[in-house]
Amino acid sequence: MKQILIIGAGRSSSSLITYILDQAEKLGWYVIVADSNLDLATEKIGNHPNGRPVWLDVTKNNDRKDLISRVDVVVSLLPAHLHLEVAHDCIKLKKHLITASYVSHELYRLGDEARDRELIFMGEMGLDPGIDHMSAMKTIDRIKREGGKIKSFKSYTGGLIAPESDDNPWSYKFTWNPRNVVLAGQGTAQYLENGKLKFIPYNRLFKESVPVNIPGVGEYEAYANRDSLLYSDIYGLEGIPNILRATIRAKGFCRAWDALIRIGLTDGSFPILDSGNITFHELMDAYTSPQIQGGSVKDRIAQMLGEDTDSDIMKKLEWLGLFRKKRINLPNATPALILENLLMSKWEMKKKDKDMILMYHVFEYEQDGQDKRLTATLVMKGEDAKNTAMAKLVGLPMGIFTKLVMQGKIQSKGVNIPVMPEVYDPVLKELAEYGVEFVEEETLI
Amino acid sequence: MKQILIIGAGRSSSSLITYILDQAEKLGWYVIVADSNLDLATEKIGNHPNGRPVWLDVTKNNDRKDLISRVDVVVSLLPAHLHLEVAHDCIKLKKHLITASYVSHELYRLGDEARDRELIFMGEMGLDPGIDHMSAMKTIDRIKREGGKIKSFKSYTGGLIAPESDDNPWSYKFTWNPRNVVLAGQGTAQYLENGKLKFIPYNRLFKESVPVNIPGVGEYEAYANRDSLLYSDIYGLEGIPNILRATIRAKGFCRAWDALIRIGLTDGSFPILDSGNITFHELMDAYTSPQIQGGSVKDRIAQMLGEDTDSDIMKKLEWLGLFRKKRINLPNATPALILENLLMSKWEMKKKDKDMILMYHVFEYEQDGQDKRLTATLVMKGEDAKNTAMAKLVGLPMGIFTKLVMQGKIQSKGVNIPVMPEVYDPVLKELAEYGVEFVEEETLI
Repeated sequence: MKQILIIGAGRSSSSLITYILDQAEKLGWYVIVADSNLDLATEKIGNHPNGRPVWLDVTKNNDRKDLISRVDVVVSLLPAHLHLEVAHDCIKLKKHLITASYVSHELYRLGDEARDRELIFMGEMGLDPGIDHMSAMKTIDRIKREGGKIKSFKSYTGGLIAPESDDNPWSYKFTWNPRNVVLAGQGTAQYLENGKLKFIPYNRLFKESVPVNIPGVGEYEAYANRDSLLYSDIYGLEGIPNILRATIRAKGFCRAWDALIRIGLTDGSFPILDSGNITFHELMDAYTSPQIQGGSVKDRIAQMLGEDTDSDIMKKLEWLGLFRKKRINLPNATPALILENLLMSKWEMKKKDKDMILMYHVFEYEQDGQDKRLTATLVMKGEDAKNTAMAKLVGLPMGIFTKLVMQGKIQSKGVNIPVMPEVYDPVLKELAEYGVEFVEEETLI
Repeated sequence: MKQILIIGAGRSSSSLITYILDQAEKLGWYVIVADSNLDLATEKIGNHPNGRPVWLDVTKNNDRKDLISRVDVVVSLLPAHLHLEVAHDCIKLKKHLITASYVSHELYRLGDEARDRELIFMGEMGLDPGIDHMSAMKTIDRIKREGGKIKSFKSYTGGLIAPESDDNPWSYKFTWNPRNVVLAGQGTAQYLENGKLKFIPYNRLFKESVPVNIPGVGEYEAYANRDSLLYSDIYGLEGIPNILRATIRAKGFCRAWDALIRIGLTDGSFPILDSGNITFHELMDAYTSPQIQGGSVKDRIAQMLGEDTDSDIMKKLEWLGLFRKKRINLPNATPALILENLLMSKWEMKKKDKDMILMYHVFEYEQDGQDKRLTATLVMKGEDAKNTAMAKLVGLPMGIFTKLVMQGKIQSKGVNIPVMPEVYDPVLKELAEYGVEFVEEETLI
């Protein structure tokens, strides 16, 4: 029996594991789900005859290699920095590897070795990155085929809370890894606008968010997502004057998040020795600028941020409980970890809450002497806090691609992201069966 | 013959190597100076009979261990992140280790092993950290001995350019590792003020610099240096309501540096793919906020920073050449590396330039019912661009301490910083012979 190893059975794994077990039953595979928490893995497998949970400490090299050696394909849901060890094992043991994470420089460097051994290492095979690449490439290839010249590509994605479940002033709840949300944007975002490079450092990223009006959906805002420039060549858009990938948030979110950055709460680089003993109120007091004297802690934070004490932003901060005399109770924690823990209690989805994925591509191109704009919009809501659209849209692409690899239908070798027709055609086709469909609209401009 | 290994023969090593060679001749030791650049090591040794230059790639474990195995004491001038490997070797091979770098958590964790093997690993044995610890501790111990209760300790240090050699608008030139200057302050500074914790994140650190008026020397400004809280226990000042370590700069420096931070030029975390092809002018253009339209690049940067185009800060930026249409010529460089390279050409000391070290301690304490303030000030100028006060004040403490260890005069074991009398008494005494003397002034308050 051919075997698949899924490493990681956490919050984002259920749709993937369900899909793979279903296929395993139909197609006669065996599935091993490994996690450092055996209960999680056991729960995900249930009593499925084609699956087995395994306890794995992924830092134990021999255990990890032993598991990998027994299977045909490895799907890694580990945090991004742990993929590399797994990838080295996969090279040595000649196994294919699939992840939803951004492909690091180190992973790209394994490309030749993977190709020599006729392996495919597929990264960025989730939602964003993942479905965004595939849906964009399908349209880009079609426009080119039809003789169009693409001048601008902007792609916006957000993992949000559905309007009917939006009951907090931030209009946000966690539907994905909280740590990644807290640290999002650190570094410098890069993109192209009118043929010019644009760089936005972290200290200006959330200040300089832009409005995004998605026809038929609503008004949102977006901040630039990492290095968009990397994709102009990968997408076959060499020399394009406008390219931007961005992250969607509810209106008002970004400037309030910028307030948390300015206060200092997103720094994950140093521990606060006293954080086991102090309150949130004392933490905020410690952050107030020494130059500002008098008034309550909240007054001084407002003054430091250049806000009125009862502004929208201050109301958002207050709603988080940042000014409460409640103990933080996390010894030796970094500010980012303190913030993450606080947000996990405030931004937790209720059982019946629905999340919502928005993806919005805007292509501008010239065809037969006419300038055209094509938009492609995906809106997908989850069922509840457990069956989220996020888990589905991250898990299904990996699951479907795993099936294609198991069936020997993928010719590409080496380290890749899903931009080739042999990948995006069958994956998008099957995703449509799960309701993942873009609404396209074309206008002359 | 007893032997000493000095690893690193770069810009900061000359005073140390000269001192150690002098002592070696008197006391009958042999000195090995190892560097990946053999010329540098050879030049530093000259034709001294007690020294030998050696080529060493410090990442080659066997070569490194082989060298360390032959000596009695190792002095590491490597970049801080490379000390740990050397420290592990020193544990295995039973050798003492001396560095001028901040002691990392990882290094502190070797404390028990070092103590068990009767080794001393001495870190923070340079100027700042180093002479600051020793001079502060000497005074702290004396005040306590005389029945004083210390309520406030503030310590300011700066590696500056002497007024007679100050001929640029920043009043700054490199007298020390440029990379450390460019990345200084990233993370969050922590200190205590009136019994309250104070945290300043990087995005506010240089904005919130404070004036420091050093009697008889002049008016400067200072920004908080890393985690001052760590030192209250180490200094024996448990429960002290005020403790601050800070870095001195010329007036006006910090707000101009903050402009570089806000633009985004100090980010060392991502490479600019195009940096081999673009000019500084294009780089600045890329950094201008997309929301600001019209005007020259300089106008738009000024507007983004909230500055007049001819303000002092804008003049400082212009003087650096940031708006010139000159190619950067550093492919794939991070913004921080581009800035470092630019500053190295603008902030280079001329041959006859003198640097200047300022150290200024302010102790406030109660004694016999009276509140007193004691200040201790050190001003030391270098001779020229080669024989800097910086190299002297970083190198001599390491050199003198190395001698004490070679002579068996140090009883302390384990991982330490120089806060104990058996270290600071003889080191400060010998430093005084080299002109390193603090001027003390005491007043009632």
